[in-house]
Amino acid sequence: MCGGKEREMEYREMARKAKSDSYKMAGLAEEVRNKALENIGKALRAESEKIFSANGRDMERAEKDSLPGPIINRLKFDDHKLSDCIKGIGDLIKLTDPVSKTLLKRQLDEGLILEKITCPIGVIGVIFESRPDALVQISSLCVKSGNCAILKGGSEAAESNRVLFDTIHKAGVEAGLPEGFLTLVEDRAGIDQLLKCHDEIDLIIPRGSNSFVQHIMNDSKIPVMGHADGICHVYVDSEADMAKAIPVIKDSKTQYVAACNAAETLLIHEDVYDSVMEALKDAPFEMRFDEEGYSQEYLDYIISVKKVGSMEEAVDHINHYGSHHTDVIITEDEEKAELFMDGVDSAGVYVNCSSRFADGFRYGFGAEVGISTGKLHARGPVGLDGLVTYKYKLRGKGQIVADYASGKREFKFKDI
Amino acid sequence: MCGGKEREMEYREMARKAKSDSYKMAGLAEEVRNKALENIGKALRAESEKIFSANGRDMERAEKDSLPGPIINRLKFDDHKLSDCIKGIGDLIKLTDPVSKTLLKRQLDEGLILEKITCPIGVIGVIFESRPDALVQISSLCVKSGNCAILKGGSEAAESNRVLFDTIHKAGVEAGLPEGFLTLVEDRAGIDQLLKCHDEIDLIIPRGSNSFVQHIMNDSKIPVMGHADGICHVYVDSEADMAKAIPVIKDSKTQYVAACNAAETLLIHEDVYDSVMEALKDAPFEMRFDEEGYSQEYLDYIISVKKVGSMEEAVDHINHYGSHHTDVIITEDEEKAELFMDGVDSAGVYVNCSSRFADGFRYGFGAEVGISTGKLHARGPVGLDGLVTYKYKLRGKGQIVADYASGKREFKFKDI
Repeated sequence: MCGGKEREMEYREMARKAKSDSYKMAGLAEEVRNKALENIGKALRAESEKIFSANGRDMERAEKDSLPGPIINRLKFDDHKLSDCIKGIGDLIKLTDPVSKTLLKRQLDEGLILEKITCPIGVIGVIFESRPDALVQISSLCVKSGNCAILKGGSEAAESNRVLFDTIHKAGVEAGLPEGFLTLVEDRAGIDQLLKCHDEIDLIIPRGSNSFVQHIMNDSKIPVMGHADGICHVYVDSEADMAKAIPVIKDSKTQYVAACNAAETLLIHEDVYDSVMEALKDAPFEMRFDEEGYSQEYLDYIISVKKVGSMEEAVDHINHYGSHHTDVIITEDEEKAELFMDGVDSAGVYVNCSSRFADGFRYGFGAEVGISTGKLHARGPVGLDGLVTYKYKLRGKGQIVADYASGKREFKFKDI
Repeated sequence: MCGGKEREMEYREMARKAKSDSYKMAGLAEEVRNKALENIGKALRAESEKIFSANGRDMERAEKDSLPGPIINRLKFDDHKLSDCIKGIGDLIKLTDPVSKTLLKRQLDEGLILEKITCPIGVIGVIFESRPDALVQISSLCVKSGNCAILKGGSEAAESNRVLFDTIHKAGVEAGLPEGFLTLVEDRAGIDQLLKCHDEIDLIIPRGSNSFVQHIMNDSKIPVMGHADGICHVYVDSEADMAKAIPVIKDSKTQYVAACNAAETLLIHEDVYDSVMEALKDAPFEMRFDEEGYSQEYLDYIISVKKVGSMEEAVDHINHYGSHHTDVIITEDEEKAELFMDGVDSAGVYVNCSSRFADGFRYGFGAEVGISTGKLHARGPVGLDGLVTYKYKLRGKGQIVADYASGKREFKFKDI
């Protein structure tokens, strides 16, 4: 249909604008990006009434539509959340610039100097859930790292997102950012159009349900950073200290059941199986013993339990059924701990502590972009470093390769 | 058809075996991997007659089939090439272990220590051209970095590849590598089967023609590292020193025309256009002035030429038509050079030197896996570092997140 084609063009134009402005973003000094963040923080405070009133309309509609309680909670954007967001922006300004870091500086020959320097990735598409604060966080992370962002938020938060976007966009442009530094996509059909723009969008970060993330990974040539699911394991070894095992199991399962780093399967060595089961008999979660549960992400007070004959069996189980997110061994045997950590193919491999530590803030990154279960680029909790790539700069004085090929000149490699 | 289904199963089994052995590879100490490389080097020398005789049969068939001269040259595997390969393995042994490097070590709290440690990626599929030496190189790079490799070589080199594979596989297994450390795929249909194995294969490195690489990037969910094409530019600025410009243009275009880092388009500032054209009037390449050439990778003694009004126009042209590989500015104006390097979105951005320097050996990496024009994971010439990822190891004493959430304990971040 003609309307569909027009819409497709509209999204491509949007993505092209972001792409061409991403080159301008890449050239901005740290001061300009930090100044823009400062301006954004002030504007959010100045526009707070407008923001709360838009959020009020979203909340009203959500209640009228009888949306579930947890969604309404996430949707709420009050003075407390606004203050958190503004504080977050202040913290971000203080973080070291992720851009223009020298990763390598090497003399290839006299007067021929190679540098490997971090730079923004370019255009990042972020698709996020119904929390309006996610829009503020993601926009400010992208400004800090010099990237242009194309955002698609949850439709429940449409009015809040629109006002937040307008406020941030205006404040950023006033501070010297290019028009295309931030783009808001308001209809769901836009996502499928954007997924086709692999020449313009460099990276997609989907935050949302498992099936949604799978859909994006399958349907786009654009690289995706994120995780489809989190099937994390706690393995209680024969050499486990029960005083550590039981609290770590409970914390990994219940400290926040809806998180991707919550444990979903408990593997127990046969030597300690009975004592672990005895200690867990009053635990506030259901235990399931059937094989169908091994691939399930409950996100609830439920855990799969399996008895294993050895640490090796636990490692094999984890590599087969897990999602390469975060897995824990409880043992006092240091050698086994090392074998477990080398053998388990996951972003996080832990000894004697809760799987819930898998988080950018708990790792001390200061800001979290998300958690990646992919192995390339960024793995595990991703900080600002995950939003940059690098380029090689080579500065010469007219050198040509023919001289080195003929032996007239020789490379004199020296890191400087 | 039943045969097709069986074949599919056979490839999946092959990939599964590599996957499960990749966990064994990941646990091997540096000494075992280096010892295996040593053994492989010796075995190649010991089996040289068998290798040359297999290569002789490939050469005979190639000549009978009247394959083009350059292919026959690449196919040839004589004592000179064997010695180069064995020397390469010796050099590789001496390189620092890319695995188990500590990228970060941080105390999160007393007795809770986070480490970010490099580790092998897992299973790497490499599809390469007709040079039998590529098989030796790729296998040894994968052994050094602790990865399992699945190889598909050019069919012209089938007999050479089979003998080289048998020799390397036997020597590696004798030295303690798992059976699945190396797998050879001998029929082209196997490629499409392997592209479906995204749960088993972690990374594909295609080395070959543009259309072939495009096909793989489009048809597989497995991440791809490589480059589809290399449309590199030389921009001669108004402030260029002609004594540098002319040799750099000639070297970038002609030092090796078949390379991806050879220049395909020459952009010239209008102020110096006439003098550059005058200086190039006897240059050993054809100049084309039509727009259709801007997206073309000639790989020949041909170059597109365009007059531009400013450095900004050159940057826009490069970002629009280029392949984000390597682009050069010739200028004496340092400020312009910096703006060019920040504005051009390519893996390599050079000032006053030849685009042909874009190469792992010339960067002093000691070994080259390939060149990547993607922005994630590895960009530009890729050394052994491109064959590893990292994981986070967290070692505790029973710590749980609830204690930090409640304020009972506080994080004490300290890099150690």
